[in-house]
Amino acid sequence: MKRSLGAINFADPLPLWLVATYDKNDKPNMMAIGAGAICNMRPPCLMISLRETTYTHNIILDRRAFTVNIPSEGYWREADYVGMISGKNTNKFEDTGFTPIRSNLVDAPLIEECPVNFECKLLDKKELPSHTMFIGEILDVKVEESTFDGDKGPDVKRIKPIIFSPRWSWGSSGYYSVGVKIGEAYSQRKPPKR
Amino acid sequence: MKRSLGAINFADPLPLWLVATYDKNDKPNMMAIGAGAICNMRPPCLMISLRETTYTHNIILDRRAFTVNIPSEGYWREADYVGMISGKNTNKFEDTGFTPIRSNLVDAPLIEECPVNFECKLLDKKELPSHTMFIGEILDVKVEESTFDGDKGPDVKRIKPIIFSPRWSWGSSGYYSVGVKIGEAYSQRKPPKR
Repeated sequence: MKRSLGAINFADPLPLWLVATYDKNDKPNMMAIGAGAICNMRPPCLMISLRETTYTHNIILDRRAFTVNIPSEGYWREADYVGMISGKNTNKFEDTGFTPIRSNLVDAPLIEECPVNFECKLLDKKELPSHTMFIGEILDVKVEESTFDGDKGPDVKRIKPIIFSPRWSWGSSGYYSVGVKIGEAYSQRKPPKR
Repeated sequence: MKRSLGAINFADPLPLWLVATYDKNDKPNMMAIGAGAICNMRPPCLMISLRETTYTHNIILDRRAFTVNIPSEGYWREADYVGMISGKNTNKFEDTGFTPIRSNLVDAPLIEECPVNFECKLLDKKELPSHTMFIGEILDVKVEESTFDGDKGPDVKRIKPIIFSPRWSWGSSGYYSVGVKIGEAYSQRKPPKR
């Protein structure tokens, strides 16, 4: 039996990512997003959707660059705080103790404490009814060495990204860790038997 | 210490969602995507990015509707299979045993076995270099009753969505479950102390 919830914004799982920029005074800033995804393969691109009223919105139009940073679960409080207030009147890097690192590729800071950083130049944008979708071309991905599983590359269990599970109508949204591995991707070439 | 991976498509966590449609012969079809996200609030919209060569691509242009369905982790094999082959020459609903349910809102089937279904009408699209991004307006979300945590609504730990963790360069991509709750969203109004 299914219950109809109407037209609501609710989906699982969503990422909790931090978007970092420099404002017009070169102050580094961050915001938190759950509305982000990989959206193109060649060249690799990701998209983030922002309301026009966010401090980051006009900064991206101005600088034409941003970084996306994946915080580890140990930083969920910092990431939540970053999502709670605007950077207009405060320096969220100073507030959280996060360290902005100047990128050599784009005009935006990397967050040192995040194990994965994507350096993006603004490739395109799309105006949606309440949000602007920014499409960033990923020029480089920088990943913390200690998350590498030898030749297999970065391991999600060492990156420990945060899963955001929204409950829009009930006010009990939460953050979750990544759990156990349940299967190998691209392994089922034939219909599984039940 | 960070290692530079170059311009690659790699991000965590990504969702594993199933997009369902009817083809021109009314055959129900499904494909798997990791490139999907919420992208607009009013009205609620989600986006999915598809290559033009997928069977689903032209179907969505024709029917102007699709559903997004969240499979539970017990169905990771079915979901992986759905992502491995094209629906052009097979009926993936018959192959997997999944049940297509006719929507009363959009011209696309719901997957009964998935605990969450989004019924989307095509609102807009955006051509990207290698992919087309389809923006679907969510007309309704249907959620399995047994995933409800009383008045708090659907619980991610009962929905058990699948997390897709890609390792583009190393061929060991995997599916993961949602782990433990690590924190309450919107709880940190002041900078956390370290």
